[in-house]
This record gives sequence, C-alpha cells and structure tokens, in this order.
Amino acid sequence: MIIVIQGLGEMGASLASALSQRVENHVIGIDNQLLSRQYAMANNIVDETATSLADVVSRAEVIILATPIAVIKQTLKQLAVLPLKPNVIITDTGSTKSEIMSLAEAFVPKTATFIGGHAMAGTQNSGVSAANSDLYREVPYFLVTKHAPKETVIKLQSILAPIAARFIEIDAQQHDELVSWISDVPHIVSFALMNAVMQHFHSVSDFGPYVAGGFKDTTRIAASNPEVWRDILLSNKAAILSSNQDLIDELHRFNQVLRQNDSLGLEKLITQAQHARQQL
Amino acid sequence: MIIVIQGLGEMGASLASALSQRVENHVIGIDNQLLSRQYAMANNIVDETATSLADVVSRAEVIILATPIAVIKQTLKQLAVLPLKPNVIITDTGSTKSEIMSLAEAFVPKTATFIGGHAMAGTQNSGVSAANSDLYREVPYFLVTKHAPKETVIKLQSILAPIAARFIEIDAQQHDELVSWISDVPHIVSFALMNAVMQHFHSVSDFGPYVAGGFKDTTRIAASNPEVWRDILLSNKAAILSSNQDLIDELHRFNQVLRQNDSLGLEKLITQAQHARQQL
Repeated sequence: MIIVIQGLGEMGASLASALSQRVENHVIGIDNQLLSRQYAMANNIVDETATSLADVVSRAEVIILATPIAVIKQTLKQLAVLPLKPNVIITDTGSTKSEIMSLAEAFVPKTATFIGGHAMAGTQNSGVSAANSDLYREVPYFLVTKHAPKETVIKLQSILAPIAARFIEIDAQQHDELVSWISDVPHIVSFALMNAVMQHFHSVSDFGPYVAGGFKDTTRIAASNPEVWRDILLSNKAAILSSNQDLIDELHRFNQVLRQNDSLGLEKLITQAQHARQQL
Repeated sequence: MIIVIQGLGEMGASLASALSQRVENHVIGIDNQLLSRQYAMANNIVDETATSLADVVSRAEVIILATPIAVIKQTLKQLAVLPLKPNVIITDTGSTKSEIMSLAEAFVPKTATFIGGHAMAGTQNSGVSAANSDLYREVPYFLVTKHAPKETVIKLQSILAPIAARFIEIDAQQHDELVSWISDVPHIVSFALMNAVMQHFHSVSDFGPYVAGGFKDTTRIAASNPEVWRDILLSNKAAILSSNQDLIDELHRFNQVLRQNDSLGLEKLITQAQHARQQL
C-alpha cells in the first residue's frame, strides 16, 4: 500500500511513524523543508520523501493531507488537476471540517473518495521531531464520511489501524461546534490568560517563579504553534465566536456574584463546575 | 516543639505529615470531623488530635491555621481571648493575605507573633486523605512578615524546614494581586469553561468522550473544592474583579481579530502567548 503523507509536522510524522512500521506499507513523506525530510528518513519515520505532491501523486493509493489548514485547502483545489490513481482514498487531519468538506466536494474528482479526518491528538510540540507512533493510541479520531461508500470508510479504518485510534463518524457541522468547545476555546482561553498576565506584569520573571501546577496546566496549550492555531481558529470562526462569547458571559457571572458578595451564588457556580469536571 | 495545626485538609495534613516526622516535634491536629482525626492518627500524620483549639492552645509553641479562610478569620478573633503561651508563633495557610493581616494586627495579642503564610501548593484533591509530606517540596511559600522580628521569621522558617519549600517574603497587597493572576483567575477560567460547556451540551456524555489533553489540563483545577474556593475568591475580591476584567478584554480581542479575519493580528496574539508560556 503506497501511502503519501503531505506535511511532516507532529500529526503527519506521527501517522507516518506508525503506518511505516507495517512491512506492506510504503510511506512517502512530503515536506518542503529539507531538514524535516532528512530527519524523517534518518529516523525511519518514512520510506521515501518528496518535495511536492505532484511528483508522487500518481503512485498514491492513500493520500493524507497533514499540513496546516490553509495548505490543505490549497491542495484540495490542486487535486482537481493532478493525475490521481482511480479509487485513491484521500483524507486530511485538519481540525475543522465544514470548509474542508465543501472544498473536497467541489474539487476532488469523483474517481477518488474523500473522507475528512481529525484526531483529538497533538501536544504543544510541533515539527517532525515531535513524531510519536503512539500519539493516536486510544484517541478519539473523527471521520466525516458524508457520501463516501461504507466499504471505503471501513478500508480507511483498516489502513489506519496501526495508530490504534478510536474512530467516530460525525457530521461536519456537529464536529466543528463540538471542537470549538473542547479544543478551540480552551486554546483561546489559554492564550488570552498568558497575554493578560503579561500585559499586567510585562516580564515573566515577575510572576513566573511563583506559579504552581494550576497556572501551568491552564496555560500549557498556550505554547502551541501560532501558525497552526491561527489557521485552525480562522477556519472555525463562526462556531468559535459564539462559544467564546458564551464563555465571556460565564466569566461575567463570576464577577457579578463576587461584586454582590453572593457567597451562595458563587459556591453554586463552583460546585456545578466541580461536578462536571469530576465526570470527565 | 509543640505544633498545633488547625484544619486537617490537604494543606494542614500535608504540613502535619512533614513536621511530625521530626522526633523533636509533637504535632497536634485539630479537626471537627471524627473521621479526619481518626485517619490522621492511624496514618501517623499527627501525634495527637483535638476537636477545638481552645483545648490545646495553652500548650502550643507554634499554631498553624490551615482551615478555609472564613474559619481562619473567625479563629484570629478568638485568639484575642485564648490563653496563649508567651512568644507563640502563629501563622496561616490562607490564599489571600490583606484581610488576614488586618485581622491579625487587630486581634492577635502583642505577646505572640503573627506571620502570614501561603504556599503555591495544593492539588484538586482535598481532605486528610490528600496528605502528602512532599506537597510543599520546592514550592514557592510566601511569608508576609510585616512587623514580625527578623529572628522570629528565621525561627518559623527553620521550624518549617522539613517541608523543603522556597520561602519568599512579600507585602500583603503585592501578594494578593500576584495571586489573583497566577491562581484565582486561572481557577475562575477553569470553572467558567466547564460551566459554559455544560450550559451548551447539558450532559458530560455529549462531549466528555471526545476531549483530549488540552481540555483536561485547562479544566483540571475546576475539580477544586467549592467551599474552599468560594472563600478564597471572596476574600480577594478587589484584585480578582480587576484581573478577571482584563482577561475578558483579552478574550474580546480574540473575537475581534477573528470577526475581522485579521490573520496577522491573530497570529501576533498567539505568538505573544506562546513566547511568554515557553519562558515558564
């Protein structure tokens, strides 16, 4: 099985690392950075590298688009004119799905099957050196199957079996709303908290030596890659604007009960949060 | 050295656990819950227990108030009329210091020395079973010394040496502002995010199975004890109202750049956060 993975960042390189362990797979990694390609070859993450999808696309039986979302969108448009193998399965790793599914519908030829993909995996690290063949183990991995034939969905899942993810079929809109809550807004909160603290203290040395686990956990994902997250947030704008406003409303609620010295109201807000969190 | 610790929750019981390991110490734990006292004795966390400070206070050379803040405030008032040993050192573990320092100034007899204390320690767990003699190891431990004689401050630090904390002297107001940023607002953010998500989905089963590490980290401290955090937040109200509003402004900034599709502005906000977080 010839598998082409475009983008050897944390997501793509981790997929490559798991998939290339199967002897029947030949994994070709595409990345425009020479150092990333060299690292991937030297560490047996891929079997072969290329600089451009066009160079290897005609051999691909599976294509995985694992670049930032802006590049995934460009690539989907290119697919309309590239010499694809018949019955090629194409998937992606983009964190939002509505836009990508619309582009795929418009540009991917009918001889191919596109299935949207998004795993709830990834750390604050980035780049090929973050490759980890266990990154997806037991992780919820959404598949937006839309018009894809049932047997092709099953085939993709069996090809991806080495990553040991939990596959979940979901509708694109439902996915994006869910993700705005469980991933996008938590990142914004984390970024915003770091920025507000810096706005106040100006220098990390004025508060950094005193922070404990709580602050570190709450801001861990603020160290995420800016380019990647810029694209993710922009591509899920509608859902985020609404979810983020709901969060702001909840923060105002805390200030309101505090201002009124409403001890009972404050305890109720915290108890609700505690009960919900304890069920996770 | 007879050390009386009032409140065998996570903070008090962890102090007791470390301090009672020194043979020269006799640690008396006060708690109104029978089960907590029994657990503390059975697990060698304390050497003796009592139900009320009044019963043992005349023997105490050190008194550590480790209850929720509301109870610390009540106890400080009682100290004015209790038969304290001359030269007793009194300290507390309350997360905010301005209110407590004022009460101590007003009510603690001049024969005693009060030094405010607050360690950046603690997990989302609570109660005597969360006792951990290593809880304070390497942790920033603020001491608000105010009018305390230098030698008494040194004596308290040497008594507390078994917990292996990093002691930092700080002014009460400065402490409370710092803590609003590095502890209180992060807790509110975590509570508010859980509440906003629940408001949207109503049931944990509708999003819980899909959350990844990012969401879990950002909301970990939402599982904190409601009674404890109600008191902490109320007692640091002024600093929190201001810091929380600054955070809300930062969240609005994210919605603003998103609404305007301001890709560069969004990347800049994220990059600032990333740089700051990477320095922690």
